[in-house]
Amino acid sequence: MKNRSGLFVSFEGIDGCGKSTQSKALRNHLEGEGQTVVLTREPGGSPGAEEIRQLVLTGEPGRWSAESELLLFNAARRDHIEKTIRPALQAGKTVITDRFADSTRVYQGATRGDLRGMVDQLHDLMIGIEPDVTFLIDMDPSTALERGLARRSGEDRYEEFGLGFQETLRHGFLALAKRFSNRCVVIDGNRDIGAVSAEICAHMAARVGSFG
Amino acid sequence: MKNRSGLFVSFEGIDGCGKSTQSKALRNHLEGEGQTVVLTREPGGSPGAEEIRQLVLTGEPGRWSAESELLLFNAARRDHIEKTIRPALQAGKTVITDRFADSTRVYQGATRGDLRGMVDQLHDLMIGIEPDVTFLIDMDPSTALERGLARRSGEDRYEEFGLGFQETLRHGFLALAKRFSNRCVVIDGNRDIGAVSAEICAHMAARVGSFG
Ligand SMILES: Nc1ncnc2c1ncn2[C@@H]1O[C@H](COP(=O)(O)OP(=O)(O)OP(=O)(O)O)[C@@H](O)[C@H]1O
Ligand SMILES: Nc1ncnc2c1ncn2[C@@H]1O[C@H](COP(=O)(O)OP(=O)(O)OP(=O)(O)O)[C@@H](O)[C@H]1O
Ligand SMILES: [Mg+2]
Ligand SMILES: [Mg+2]
Repeated sequence: MKNRSGLFVSFEGIDGCGKSTQSKALRNHLEGEGQTVVLTREPGGSPGAEEIRQLVLTGEPGRWSAESELLLFNAARRDHIEKTIRPALQAGKTVITDRFADSTRVYQGATRGDLRGMVDQLHDLMIGIEPDVTFLIDMDPSTALERGLARRSGEDRYEEFGLGFQETLRHGFLALAKRFSNRCVVIDGNRDIGAVSAEICAHMAARVGSFG
Repeated sequence: MKNRSGLFVSFEGIDGCGKSTQSKALRNHLEGEGQTVVLTREPGGSPGAEEIRQLVLTGEPGRWSAESELLLFNAARRDHIEKTIRPALQAGKTVITDRFADSTRVYQGATRGDLRGMVDQLHDLMIGIEPDVTFLIDMDPSTALERGLARRSGEDRYEEFGLGFQETLRHGFLALAKRFSNRCVVIDGNRDIGAVSAEICAHMAARVGSFG
């Protein structure tokens, strides 16, 4: 991507780990420092990407193969980059996205391990860009599930929300953080919101200090 | 593609060259011989692919970049193969498609030459299959335009229908026929419907003789 000047930040991690909470907190913190921030999310993040998202999510489950879905999500991501992310970065804004390509890598890897090579090649061919910084909020899946269950009115059905699957995802994210150690910062999410946020803001301050 | 047993045939060529006419004629001929034939078309050819097609074609022109559109068309093609083409071939049926990946190669190549490499790599990664036989109906673009204009109530506006562009497409298709000479049969489309059809049926008879 040419003439990019803003910082591109993503939040990743298992369901309920605090990505949305922490991406908003970081946005508020940076805006308080006078920065112009664009907060966005995936899947979606641009009008075209939201339409593709609808196409994927509506209708019977299983109507798209994993490969067709992968193509649709990459089309959505490409649109998200072109319409939302790249223009903001080129205008010098900080972009914070709540999930990005790492989520595709980890979820696809967990559900269809045989497609990992395809996922990577498709990303390299059609997407290419990576965040400058990725905050991986790592935490105990059963605590994350409890938070999710609290949100979902306190029902107690661990099996339905798939603790074992969340464990697989957690290990997938940790493996990615090793693979992309240049950009990934693993944050311990088992703490209260303020403690997690303070560590993320400190990392950003150090980063901006060293980059800009 | 494994366990494939039916023959996969595509028709390609510039607008108005007779693809739809000849694919129907071949279907009728083969059915007359007792074969079970599935006639399909692109873009589209399966319910999911038709929905993607709608997504691409509706809304303002230019709302999708060439790259996003390429991803969407590949998602549609993947679905078309999985839901329509492959099941039919595996059941031993002959599949005739009115346009396939060669149209993407030629139209993208003509409009965005810089994307040719991307078009090929995306095809190799996500689509892979090629027809066994491709009939390229080659003809003089001005005659094809006249046929199209006749269909469109006889208006005479060559410029709006883009004779120069059709010339570029024609040369693109002829170049592809050289590149994929193992499967492409160039048919002179400047003749009457019956003469063109007779040549196509003769090729098919020879082909089935040698393969089956
Ligand atoms: N550090 C924390 N301690 C306690 N509760 C938290 C903490 N962080 C977030 N929560 C709460 O946990 C729930 C899940 O948080 P949040 O929505 O931010 O997670 P998420 O990673 O975005 O989840 P999802 O993957 O479902 O989008 C929310 O109700 C949120 O208020
Ligand atoms: N050999 C021919 N001689 C004269 N007219 C023809 C011949 N073949 C087709 N036509 C007529 O020309 C018009 C275009 O043919 P057809 O629709 O089969 O072309 P096509 O390649 O499918 O076009 P498009 O790319 O627009 O789908 C039709 O009206 C058809 O009846
Ligand atoms: Mg969230
Ligand atoms: Mg036609």
